[in-house]
Amino acid sequence: MQIAIVLFDRFTALDAVGPYQVLCGIPGAETVFVAEQAGPVVDNEDSLALVARRTFAEVPRPDIVVVPGGPGQNDRMTDDTLLNWLRAVDATSTWTTSVCTGSLLLAAAGLLRGRRATTHWLALDTLAEYGATPTSERVVFDGKYVTAAGVSSGIDMGLTLVGAIAGDEHAMAIQLLTEYDPQPPYDAGSPAKAPAAVVEKLRDASRFLPS
Amino acid sequence: MQIAIVLFDRFTALDAVGPYQVLCGIPGAETVFVAEQAGPVVDNEDSLALVARRTFAEVPRPDIVVVPGGPGQNDRMTDDTLLNWLRAVDATSTWTTSVCTGSLLLAAAGLLRGRRATTHWLALDTLAEYGATPTSERVVFDGKYVTAAGVSSGIDMGLTLVGAIAGDEHAMAIQLLTEYDPQPPYDAGSPAKAPAAVVEKLRDASRFLPS
Repeated sequence: MQIAIVLFDRFTALDAVGPYQVLCGIPGAETVFVAEQAGPVVDNEDSLALVARRTFAEVPRPDIVVVPGGPGQNDRMTDDTLLNWLRAVDATSTWTTSVCTGSLLLAAAGLLRGRRATTHWLALDTLAEYGATPTSERVVFDGKYVTAAGVSSGIDMGLTLVGAIAGDEHAMAIQLLTEYDPQPPYDAGSPAKAPAAVVEKLRDASRFLPS
Repeated sequence: MQIAIVLFDRFTALDAVGPYQVLCGIPGAETVFVAEQAGPVVDNEDSLALVARRTFAEVPRPDIVVVPGGPGQNDRMTDDTLLNWLRAVDATSTWTTSVCTGSLLLAAAGLLRGRRATTHWLALDTLAEYGATPTSERVVFDGKYVTAAGVSSGIDMGLTLVGAIAGDEHAMAIQLLTEYDPQPPYDAGSPAKAPAAVVEKLRDASRFLPS
C-alpha cells in the first residue's frame, strides 16, 4: 500500500505531518512525500522544510492520496500540473483525502462535485463555490473521499482511516503509541467554542480570503 | 525570541512538528530547526525528512529549546555534541522543553535531576534512572523545564507555553486557527484508557527498551 502526501510551497506543516504520523503505522504501508519537483518544500511560516522524495510523475498510482492545506493552496487552484495529477491518481486511488484547505484543491480538480466535504472553518464558503456541499463536521467521509477540517483535524482523520483499513485494534495501538489523549489547555478549537472576539479577529485577518 | 527545535536521526516527526505549529504563532518568534549538521534529517519511519537549517554551533542562545523524542534518542544518550549543547543553551534559555523521549536527553544532560518530568508512557521508568521524578501527567512544568508525554502531547505543551508567553487570548487564537478541537475516534490514548491487550502488545514490542 502506497500513501502519497502532497507538498507545495507554503503548505501548513501539521496538515501533512498529523495524518502522516498515524497513517505510516498501517502495516505494509510505504509513505512518500511528493511534489512537482523533488527536494525541500518550505511551509507557510518559512521556517520548516519537508523533503519531497518523489515527483508527481514518479508516483502514478498511490492507494491513498493526502492533500494538505495552507496559505499556499490559493496559488495552486489553477495549477494544471497538480490538478491533473490529482485527477489521474484519483482514478485508481482507494482513498482520496485532504486536510484543511487541501479540500479546495480536490474541489478545484473537480473531485468533490455534489459531495459532502469539509475544510478549515474560514474556507467553508469557498468550498461551496466549487460545487461541494460543505459541512462543519471534523472528519467527513463521502465514499472514498475523506476530508478533514483545519490543521490538527488530520490526526483524527488519519486515525479514523487507519481503523477503516487495518481495524479498530490496530488504530487504538497507534493512538496509544502516539499517546493521543488530547488535553488542550483551552476549549477554543472551533468557532462555536472560542470567544467571539477571537473568532472575529481571525475572520478579519483571514489568510484564506482570495487575494 | 528564538525557538530552537532539535533534530536527530530517527526522531519522531510529530514530536517536533506539533509544538512547532503552535509555538511559531508567538508574535515575533523566529523558529529554527537545528542539528549537529545542517541539512535533511530523516525520521524513525525513514519516510520523512525535515531540514535542519542551522548547526548547534550557529544557535548558541535560543530563548526556547524543544527536544523531540523518537527511537533515535537511544543513540544520543552519550552524544557529547548534543548533550554539551543542551547544557550550554540551558544556561541562558527562558524555557527548556521536550516531547516524548526527548526528556531522556534532557535528563542525560543532567538537567532534570530532582525535577518532576514526564516522557512517553513506555519510558517513564528510564526517566527515573536519570534522576528525574517521573509523573504521568500530559504536560509537566517544573520551573522553566516543561516536558510533555508521548508524541501528540507536544501540541498541548506548545499551546500551554504560548498561553504563558503571549497570553490566553493569543493561545486561543492559535488553537482556533489550527482548529484544535480534538475528536479522536477511540478513547485509547493512554495506558489507563486503552484495552489491556493493546497496552501489553506495545509493552512487549517496545522500541524504547535499551538495546
